[in-house]
Order: sequence, then C-alpha cells, then structure tokens
Amino acid sequence: MKTLIVGLGLIGGSFALALRDHELTDEILGVENSEEHAAEALRLGLADRIVRFEEGVAEADLIVLATPVDTIPLLAVKALNRVNDRQVVIDMGSIKSELCEVISMHARRGRFVAVHPMWGTEYSGPKAAQRGAFSGRNVVFCDSVHSDRDALHTVERIFRTLGCPAVYMDPEEHDLHTAYVSHISHVTSFALALTVLEKEREERHIFDLAGGGFESTVRLAKSSAATWVPILLRNKYNVLDVLREHIHQLQILRKMLERDDAEGLKSAMDRANTIQRILH
Amino acid sequence: MKTLIVGLGLIGGSFALALRDHELTDEILGVENSEEHAAEALRLGLADRIVRFEEGVAEADLIVLATPVDTIPLLAVKALNRVNDRQVVIDMGSIKSELCEVISMHARRGRFVAVHPMWGTEYSGPKAAQRGAFSGRNVVFCDSVHSDRDALHTVERIFRTLGCPAVYMDPEEHDLHTAYVSHISHVTSFALALTVLEKEREERHIFDLAGGGFESTVRLAKSSAATWVPILLRNKYNVLDVLREHIHQLQILRKMLERDDAEGLKSAMDRANTIQRILH
Repeated sequence: MKTLIVGLGLIGGSFALALRDHELTDEILGVENSEEHAAEALRLGLADRIVRFEEGVAEADLIVLATPVDTIPLLAVKALNRVNDRQVVIDMGSIKSELCEVISMHARRGRFVAVHPMWGTEYSGPKAAQRGAFSGRNVVFCDSVHSDRDALHTVERIFRTLGCPAVYMDPEEHDLHTAYVSHISHVTSFALALTVLEKEREERHIFDLAGGGFESTVRLAKSSAATWVPILLRNKYNVLDVLREHIHQLQILRKMLERDDAEGLKSAMDRANTIQRILH
Repeated sequence: MKTLIVGLGLIGGSFALALRDHELTDEILGVENSEEHAAEALRLGLADRIVRFEEGVAEADLIVLATPVDTIPLLAVKALNRVNDRQVVIDMGSIKSELCEVISMHARRGRFVAVHPMWGTEYSGPKAAQRGAFSGRNVVFCDSVHSDRDALHTVERIFRTLGCPAVYMDPEEHDLHTAYVSHISHVTSFALALTVLEKEREERHIFDLAGGGFESTVRLAKSSAATWVPILLRNKYNVLDVLREHIHQLQILRKMLERDDAEGLKSAMDRANTIQRILH
C-alpha cells in the first residue's frame, strides 16, 4: 500500500511512524508547505518523498489529511475530486461536523472515512512525532454509514492493527464530547498559564516553587496557536457551552471559599473525586 | 537519630521512606489517629512503632509534623512545650503564615524549622507513600532566622542528602507563591471535573473519548478533601486573588471566542506558550 500524508506534524508524522512500524505501508509520500518541516520529515523518516498534493493524490492508495482543522474540509473535497473507486481518503482532525456536512453530497463521498484517534501532545511539527503514539487509544469513526464498505473496512483494519478500539458516533455528538474531554482542558490550561504569567510581572521568583501539580495542569498551555485557534473557532458553540459551565463551577467554589463554607467545599471535592472512575 | 513522624500519609510516609533509604534515621516512631492507617503504615515499613504523641515527642531527636495544615499550629506548640534544647521540630505543611505567627513568641521557637518540600501527588494515606519522592524538588525554609543555628543545620543537611535545593522565604511570600503554583491548580482541576461530571448526567458515554490531555488537567481532582479544604481555607485571601484573576482570564478567552477574534486568541496562546521557560 502506498500512503500520502498531507501535513507531517505531530499527528501526521506519528501516524507515518505507526504505519511503518506495523508494516502497513510500502511507501509514504508527504505534502508539506513549510520547506523546513519537509526537510525535517525526510530526515526523520516520516516520508520517503515530498510531493505536490495533486501528484500524491494521483499515486496513493490511502490519503491522510492531518493539517489544522480549518483546512480539512476543502482539502477533503479536493482529494475526493481526484480519487477513483479503489482509493481511500481519511482525516485525523478533532472537529467533524463541518467536514461531514461539506462532503455529504460529494459524488465520491463513499471513499471518505472521517476518523479521530484520541491522542495528542502539547508539541507540534515533525520533531513532535512519536513512535507508538496511538496504541491503546480509542479512535472515533464519524458518519461511517456514508463510507463505502471496503473503504471503512480498510481503515478499521489499520486502526485495529495499531491497537485502537473503535467508537462510532455522529459528528455532532463527537464535537460536543471532544469539547468536554479535550478542548476545554486546553482553554483552562492557557488561562492558568496567563494567570500565573500576569502575577509573575510583580513577583519575579514565583517559579522556584513550581511543582508537579502545576506542571500537569499547565502542560497543555504549551500547545500551538496554529492548531488550537482553528479548533476553538470551529467548535465555538460547544466550547462556549463548556466554558460557561466551567466558569460557573469556579464561581461556586469561589463563593464557598469567601463564606468559609468548609462543608460545601468538602462535598464539592468529594464529588469531583468521582472523576476517578473514568480515568485510568 | 530517632525520628517521630506525626501523620503517616502521603507526605509523612514518603518522608519516612526517604529517611530510611538515605540512612538518616535509626528508628521511626509514628503517630496515627486512624487504626487502619496505623496498621498499614507498620506493614509498609513507614514506622517501627506506633506511639502516642507525648510519648513520641519525649523520645525522638527529630519530630516531623505531617498532618493536615489546620492541625499543624497547635501540634507545633504542643511539641515545642515538650522538647529540650537538642531536639528539633519540623512541619511539612503547604501553608506557613499562621504557623509561624502562632509559634513566634514561644520560649522554644528556636527548636522549630518550618519547611515545605515542593512535592505531592493526588493520592493520600500510607499507601500513597513513595520512594524517592522529594529528590530534585526545592524545599522552602520559612523564617529560618528564627530557628537555632544547630536545628537549621540539621534540617538543611537532611534535605541536602535527599537532593532538595533549599529556597529561603518569609511565610507570607511562601503562601502567596504556593497559591499560584499549587493551590490554584487544584481549584481548576476540581472545577473541571465538576464541569464534566455535570454534563455526564445528560451524555452517558462522554468518557469513551477522554484522552491524555484531559487526564493531565483533571488529575489533581482526585485529591482528598481532608487535605485540601484546610489548605484553601487557611490560604483563603491568596487563593481568592488568584482565582479572581483566573476567572478573569477565562472570561477574556470566552469573549474572544464569542467575537471570533482569531488574532486575539492567537496572541493569548502565544503568550501562554511562554510558560514553557519556567517548566522543565
């Protein structure tokens, strides 16, 4: 199988390594706008050749879109315009509603499989690519009834080989859930970093004390704007819903603290502790 | 050296293991209110004997207070009332202002060394004790000018042996800084867990998607109310200051998102990225 990966950053690059490690591909072609990233990707073995988009789509059996989410819907249409009925196109984006709507009436809709493997880190670019990245993480298939059966099976087989349990959802449900379990974590982390940086202007050596707890809650604040501005804007209404609820919860805790309400704080923390059952 | 550890949970228990691993103590006595924890601590080798507080203070060269922060000031006074001028008392609490004020006029103030090693996890109780816990973490000494020179040197030597660089601060400065780099992370994590749990009432399988980013921002929400209610209440004004600023930052991000302000979001994220330089 020959694979084209469009965007050889954190996600596309890690997917390239995973395909190679599981011997799922014979050759990887890559599309990269940045010359620096293209050179890095070749050096790191994330692709065998860098090609133009049209060139790669003509050659590849599997076409993988792994660019920022605002660019995916148009790339999906452009890829579908060029594929035959044996090629398969997938995207790895963390927003699905707009994409699935845009391609819904395309004559070759069946060749597209919309997937979202639930993995990422706060780093970006080809250097951020990791071996074994997706293993053990769920992969979400959106609107899979609209994919041709052979195309869907090909993609299911790939993710089964990578060790990713499959979850099936409609795109709206997917976007709502990712707002809760991924996007809001980034917003709070950015805000926490900004809070502390604001204070640091007055208090120079505040960070002699930064321990492990701080590091883990603020880690995602290192994530890149190029990835996250489009995600937040494209998932705006879901993210705003969660964000309003989150601010509301912080205000409840604030009022309890202002009133020295030890009982209220205790019962809120006890309830928060139950998050345990859904973490590993 | 004979050591008494009052409270054999996460911090006291880990300190016991560290003292033993570095051969800094010949015998460890423990005080534990909970019978279950006492039995566990003995089984895990965190103490050689469980004793009553007065009994332990009479015997030990080093007395370590590692109980919830609201109990530390009175225990500190009770310990100081009973020690002679060769014994040393320390606490490991994450709030220092009240403690340092309470003991400030005590006739034996010099025998007390107020320290805070910057380490912790979201778990509690004797089972949460870890080997190598404090290594590489800063330890804060508060009001160390009020400690007798020999007492201070003893404690400095212990933490140097454990691999903890020493930082010296006054208690008010310490409490402000810990509000920013530790306490607020817990508040946001509790609030994030509550936000998501609130939504889960409607959306059952939201957590099929929970990935690594979510896990790291919500990890601290597993922390116990017994530890954290007293910390927040005792550091109320500092925590409220940070919390207000944090809510303010979230509201700024919310407004940018409502207005589709991509430029504003980008520059906020770029600024948040600079948190990098103070993390490892």
